[in-house]
Amino acid sequence: MKAIIEDETFGTPGKHEGPARVVRVAVAGATGYAGLELLRLLSRHPQARVTRLMSSGRDGKKEFPIEDSHPSLRGKFTVPCQPLSVEALAPSEVDLVFLATPHQTALEVAPALLERGLRVVDLSAAFRLKDTAAYPRWYGFEHNAHSALKEAVYGVTELNGKHIAKARLVANPGCYATSVILALAPVLRERWIDSEAGIISDSKSGASGAGRGLSEKLHFVEVNENCRAYGLFNHRHVPEMLQALNLAEGDFTFTPHLLPITRGILSTIYVRLSQPRTHEEVVTLYRNFYAHAPFVRVLAHGVPEIQSVAQTNFTDIGFSIDGDGRRMIIVSALDNLIKGAAGQAIQNMNLMYGFDEGTALT
Amino acid sequence: MKAIIEDETFGTPGKHEGPARVVRVAVAGATGYAGLELLRLLSRHPQARVTRLMSSGRDGKKEFPIEDSHPSLRGKFTVPCQPLSVEALAPSEVDLVFLATPHQTALEVAPALLERGLRVVDLSAAFRLKDTAAYPRWYGFEHNAHSALKEAVYGVTELNGKHIAKARLVANPGCYATSVILALAPVLRERWIDSEAGIISDSKSGASGAGRGLSEKLHFVEVNENCRAYGLFNHRHVPEMLQALNLAEGDFTFTPHLLPITRGILSTIYVRLSQPRTHEEVVTLYRNFYAHAPFVRVLAHGVPEIQSVAQTNFTDIGFSIDGDGRRMIIVSALDNLIKGAAGQAIQNMNLMYGFDEGTALT
Amino acid sequence: MKAIIEDETFGTPGKHEGPARVVRVAVAGATGYAGLELLRLLSRHPQARVTRLMSSGRDGKKEFPIEDSHPSLRGKFTVPCQPLSVEALAPSEVDLVFLATPHQTALEVAPALLERGLRVVDLSAAFRLKDTAAYPRWYGFEHNAHSALKEAVYGVTELNGKHIAKARLVANPGCYATSVILALAPVLRERWIDSEAGIISDSKSGASGAGRGLSEKLHFVEVNENCRAYGLFNHRHVPEMLQALNLAEGDFTFTPHLLPITRGILSTIYVRLSQPRTHEEVVTLYRNFYAHAPFVRVLAHGVPEIQSVAQTNFTDIGFSIDGDGRRMIIVSALDNLIKGAAGQAIQNMNLMYGFDEGTALT
Amino acid sequence: MKAIIEDETFGTPGKHEGPARVVRVAVAGATGYAGLELLRLLSRHPQARVTRLMSSGRDGKKEFPIEDSHPSLRGKFTVPCQPLSVEALAPSEVDLVFLATPHQTALEVAPALLERGLRVVDLSAAFRLKDTAAYPRWYGFEHNAHSALKEAVYGVTELNGKHIAKARLVANPGCYATSVILALAPVLRERWIDSEAGIISDSKSGASGAGRGLSEKLHFVEVNENCRAYGLFNHRHVPEMLQALNLAEGDFTFTPHLLPITRGILSTIYVRLSQPRTHEEVVTLYRNFYAHAPFVRVLAHGVPEIQSVAQTNFTDIGFSIDGDGRRMIIVSALDNLIKGAAGQAIQNMNLMYGFDEGTALT
Repeated sequence: MKAIIEDETFGTPGKHEGPARVVRVAVAGATGYAGLELLRLLSRHPQARVTRLMSSGRDGKKEFPIEDSHPSLRGKFTVPCQPLSVEALAPSEVDLVFLATPHQTALEVAPALLERGLRVVDLSAAFRLKDTAAYPRWYGFEHNAHSALKEAVYGVTELNGKHIAKARLVANPGCYATSVILALAPVLRERWIDSEAGIISDSKSGASGAGRGLSEKLHFVEVNENCRAYGLFNHRHVPEMLQALNLAEGDFTFTPHLLPITRGILSTIYVRLSQPRTHEEVVTLYRNFYAHAPFVRVLAHGVPEIQSVAQTNFTDIGFSIDGDGRRMIIVSALDNLIKGAAGQAIQNMNLMYGFDEGTALT
Repeated sequence: MKAIIEDETFGTPGKHEGPARVVRVAVAGATGYAGLELLRLLSRHPQARVTRLMSSGRDGKKEFPIEDSHPSLRGKFTVPCQPLSVEALAPSEVDLVFLATPHQTALEVAPALLERGLRVVDLSAAFRLKDTAAYPRWYGFEHNAHSALKEAVYGVTELNGKHIAKARLVANPGCYATSVILALAPVLRERWIDSEAGIISDSKSGASGAGRGLSEKLHFVEVNENCRAYGLFNHRHVPEMLQALNLAEGDFTFTPHLLPITRGILSTIYVRLSQPRTHEEVVTLYRNFYAHAPFVRVLAHGVPEIQSVAQTNFTDIGFSIDGDGRRMIIVSALDNLIKGAAGQAIQNMNLMYGFDEGTALT
Repeated sequence: MKAIIEDETFGTPGKHEGPARVVRVAVAGATGYAGLELLRLLSRHPQARVTRLMSSGRDGKKEFPIEDSHPSLRGKFTVPCQPLSVEALAPSEVDLVFLATPHQTALEVAPALLERGLRVVDLSAAFRLKDTAAYPRWYGFEHNAHSALKEAVYGVTELNGKHIAKARLVANPGCYATSVILALAPVLRERWIDSEAGIISDSKSGASGAGRGLSEKLHFVEVNENCRAYGLFNHRHVPEMLQALNLAEGDFTFTPHLLPITRGILSTIYVRLSQPRTHEEVVTLYRNFYAHAPFVRVLAHGVPEIQSVAQTNFTDIGFSIDGDGRRMIIVSALDNLIKGAAGQAIQNMNLMYGFDEGTALT
Repeated sequence: MKAIIEDETFGTPGKHEGPARVVRVAVAGATGYAGLELLRLLSRHPQARVTRLMSSGRDGKKEFPIEDSHPSLRGKFTVPCQPLSVEALAPSEVDLVFLATPHQTALEVAPALLERGLRVVDLSAAFRLKDTAAYPRWYGFEHNAHSALKEAVYGVTELNGKHIAKARLVANPGCYATSVILALAPVLRERWIDSEAGIISDSKSGASGAGRGLSEKLHFVEVNENCRAYGLFNHRHVPEMLQALNLAEGDFTFTPHLLPITRGILSTIYVRLSQPRTHEEVVTLYRNFYAHAPFVRVLAHGVPEIQSVAQTNFTDIGFSIDGDGRRMIIVSALDNLIKGAAGQAIQNMNLMYGFDEGTALT
């Protein structure tokens, strides 16, 4: 399968010159769904080599082959999955750590990894919100890693690419957040919509977004042939959307829904245009905005659906405007595990190491 | 299974005195999904007897056992399915005709049935809109049955019960329309929301709502593991919602979505309260409004989901209000084939013949 | 909804004369899926009144409204769900107890209930196997309720109706077992197949058959878009099938599969005919065998599918025979929660109290 | 995304020396599901360049961008989809044609393409059966391309690799056939099972295997929450299985089932071992047999499920043997669109042009 290239690797980030050859990667939280997706993508990345797999264990075992957790990876990785330990993540073996762990684990581990000279892409929410006061309210814990938080770069690749390239710590965005932020950034930056008139994102997600932890709400029979709204006026991804889009809480309503599918997010976003616009004008605005973004596809007509982006790193965005040119619906679609998690994490890694942005993703 | 009661039946509507004993029913459009649901429900209705089944044919056959079309009905009906014909619907055999046919078939057939002295519950849209000018725009045909249209009663049972009871022609509402109208009627009547601030219904429906006609959009592989918005600013159920709720087109945005499930509609409705209200006040308003409606359940807390109403005639309604008491989300859930079609049709029949409203539905 | 009839009820079983009026029913294990289905069906049973609901608790609460567990039952039952207790099941309030509990709970509780003079329909496996030695092997516990076991009647209604009518304790069969036993009983009784040539049942079930208990194997993402075989040569329903069909273990292979659907079982059964038979002969045999069984439908041609029986108490059976008339495939379909559990339990109750067999089921 | 390499390409097959650089590929039948999968895989194949896309049209259009048919391919292919024409497939532009067309189209086109000096991988059944007499019986048409049929190589890569490498015309196997043949080849070749005792394959497939053509049987509502057997004793893939495995028709029973999923096949295969074998012996046999097959994974314990192979070119095979060591169940799983169609077609192309077997597939 994947050729293991045993050649030149990285040392301390920032010290290398010229594009990297091979980055040595550790995945912590390898047994979850984001972990699986990271491993699938990394297994076909010609410039990444997975040297460590870590998790909090499985079936009472501390060390086990990753295929016990993810049978689809049979035969792909020989390195065993072991308990998460900062000590076992030495710069002599690892350049970059993907944290696909619970928030508080990431909060604890990331600063120590930075200190050891490693770079980190954190898929948890531990470093997404700049305002430390937001953590107790939205996540229920105090944030005590101020220095790491300060240097963390919020990782919507298309908006923060330049900072991501140099970052030591990337706070990979939430799946819903990516879907909403990419859909709204152009019209908000250009002030084409009046945010005070209220922006509503009615979003729908597949169940993998809720992770692999057991709960009755995710039991097959409870999800199948069903659809339900949850987290009304109260979802944890709201503060990172507000922060990234510079919106006031009262002007933005976000309602996530659980779909009986495995992967994909569809966000149907309702805005009021501050002056009438044609469909063509909006398409042009977005196409210009994303002219250099290989993973955002702006539809010339119609709106996207989940199937068009499932199993890909694309975000597709389309529009519909009413006859008066004042009400606009923006629909965005992405795969929550790829562009909404592991794919964007690798896209960010690609920037961090000077690889082609699309490596392993196209 | 169902005991066929060969006793007293109806003559001309309005002529009988006292509650009816048995109503003789014909179902036109029996091979579709609404037809199947009507038959399932009628098979357990102790006061209805199905005397005619009609459809436009199946597999080239004009007359056939209904179980060829609906295997789940094996052994339940002995009357064969035959071509739709007004002549074959004689008052000597039939009291009430359910039309689950295409709109234009219903448009043509209903007046003739009324003329023969039969009563009609029309599940198509042919008689829902009072403004004849609306038909060319929304449905693409001219409406030429003015007299029937004039007497038709729009059949949201909970809002029009008294008129339905006496009606000769009931225009059974659309599935999405029922879901939205029941959710908004109380707050609009009481003027608790400012409709000019815009009302948005983001609705999601199972695929049975699109009927049994073949199309690539309804091919299993295209619907499964997918979700898509359609009919943006342009869905045919909009005008009946505007009419029933007395709303202006520019103030109401309706976006339907196709879910990869068979049955159920979830409507997530966004409104602005004209003055702050508590959750309790809203619940009380709705509970009073629907105090005599056995098929509307107002949730004391939380919002409903599709599974709670699937396979039932219930509409469940719940609410969430933001911290300022100004933004409110109303969520309603119903089964599109039952409360959204066949169940409401039978609920209306029950009123029309003085039966208990819940017969065959609870 | 359901009229609560406060009239004549039962005393001790066997003592009443003439058909019963109303049976007072308790459901233990009310929060599971079989419990939900029992309650749905009982809510429309005109001669049953639910007087007690019991479960091992929910969300840490010991007593709670059943709609907290099953929102679809909103408004249907006023009696709260409380902890299972033999003491609380007094003959003054209860005639019959449905046990939809874990096996060992049923094993413990059933004898005590019999002693109090109550009748029991046990949906667990605690009293299905006559050979006490089978329990340690297949279920991992010793059976110490010999006397109750001895009097227990195995409750495939169509095969044991006469004994069920008089039984104090009915061991309601497993869902897979019902599906296989009904499909094979006629040809085995008539010795039309040579069981030594081997009988294979490849069965497929929806996920509700595995219950509501959480496990990774039943997590939505793990079941969806998947199909897997399990319990190869080792499924717990095998011994009751062998016992009911009088087969030797080596001659019968049963492989269950998990389908990504909520309800339904399809069993594809492969047999060798001991001499060539025509399709018509087989259909006639089955139609005669099930002439008085209102819930078995024998197909004149073709084989059944799950949709035809979902949400019903029917078992549909069809056949295909190869050109030589020697290989035969029998396909049976049923709803695992209804005919495979709660529906058959109520069908049995109907026999036990002299009600029409189909009450609440048609 | 994919870099279009405008360098050295092929001329006539067989004439090149050394490994190929880039093969120019045409896909006929590009609008179907196999066509989509071919294009997805080819878009990441570094040594293939798609120069022609052909189909029988879409929405009345003869020439259109392929993304009109497959939105997920947005932006990936600039060459338009045009009507199938042998003339438009010139050796100056095309080296290899994938035929994902109806059988009779392939029957007609393939010989003409060979004559023009092109190589062909035919995903239809037109050249799978060596016995021309089989076509009228199983496919309903006469086979009149004897010479092409004679040279056609049946394309189960793992069994016929050497002949495939040199073939001008590869008859790519059916999806079910691949699943069964790979599972049975080792034990049949070693005569470990007695085929006269009967071999049964109970197979289950996702709906994409039935193609994109509309039919009521594939309407979402008819497939969802359902499972049905079809083609009993009569499926078209049977003769190619018999031919590849050298079995007599009476000894092999194959029953396909339709699963409510998009992709994947699970085959549960029942055999009798001619003498007792241990699980370990069987695993060793298979691991040796497939020692050089990168896309067959033999499980050391347990049986595979569909999710482990979905979206991959793998076939996973596992076993269960009863206590006596005589009855064995073999379970194989593959993705019907990849290993069962497009993936195996590209695997075959890789062999035909001396590429690494796994290119674009791992």
